[in-house]
Amino acid sequence: MDRVPVLKIGEILLVSIQIDLDDQTALQLQEDLSDRIVETGAHGVVIDISALEIVDSFIGRMLSTIAAVSRVLDAETVVVGMRPAVAITLVELGLSLRGVRTALNVDKALEILAEAKQVRGVGVLGFRGSDDVPV
Amino acid sequence: MDRVPVLKIGEILLVSIQIDLDDQTALQLQEDLSDRIVETGAHGVVIDISALEIVDSFIGRMLSTIAAVSRVLDAETVVVGMRPAVAITLVELGLSLRGVRTALNVDKALEILAEAKQVRGVGVLGFRGSDDVPV
Repeated sequence: MDRVPVLKIGEILLVSIQIDLDDQTALQLQEDLSDRIVETGAHGVVIDISALEIVDSFIGRMLSTIAAVSRVLDAETVVVGMRPAVAITLVELGLSLRGVRTALNVDKALEILAEAKQVRGVGVLGFRGSDDVPV
Repeated sequence: MDRVPVLKIGEILLVSIQIDLDDQTALQLQEDLSDRIVETGAHGVVIDISALEIVDSFIGRMLSTIAAVSRVLDAETVVVGMRPAVAITLVELGLSLRGVRTALNVDKALEILAEAKQVRGVGVLGFRGSDDVPV
């Protein structure tokens, strides 16, 4: 069975989707990713879709699900490498990739994730709680 | 046409091979990689083959060629994620992946490349310590 490899780069997991995803492969990828997040304690997931010429509602939903599951496991997801034509089609189809952050390339995604980690780091240390406590 | 994406991560280029490579795709990959090395000034190339269940003499030769071309362009190549079964088959077939460095995973490959860069950096600049010259 085809399987999309999940690569660990420092505290980030990187997935490059290059094959046509069917139900089974997509489910497998979600499972592999969740397992690896827990196993490695990764705080970010980068999904490269530069090889995809089409992102339909199935893939869109899969990306949203991965982002949602990762968030529950305390990891941010950033989708990178979207082709302009794909972006146009997504909008035309009315797909919004809800809850999915995007960046132009992996380097930019790593910057976003590093910033997100810093912000959360501050939250953990106690300063963020003020959001919840009206003064 | 299928095309293997080349991802830039800092000063490294990462390629994850997941599709069956025919002559055309392999040539395209070599060309894309060389172009990106020149364009980005990358000093290292990491090729992930964890999705490959078979590495035959064709792929073996391609990896050697990529490594050789990259070296001429002043970039080191490290192949990562080789399955144990693939390693066994390679040896049984008498394929040695000449000139190709290997590492267990991307993180280890990045360490190797960082070390290689440092060694070369000192070699090339010679007086690199002078950057730190105290006033």
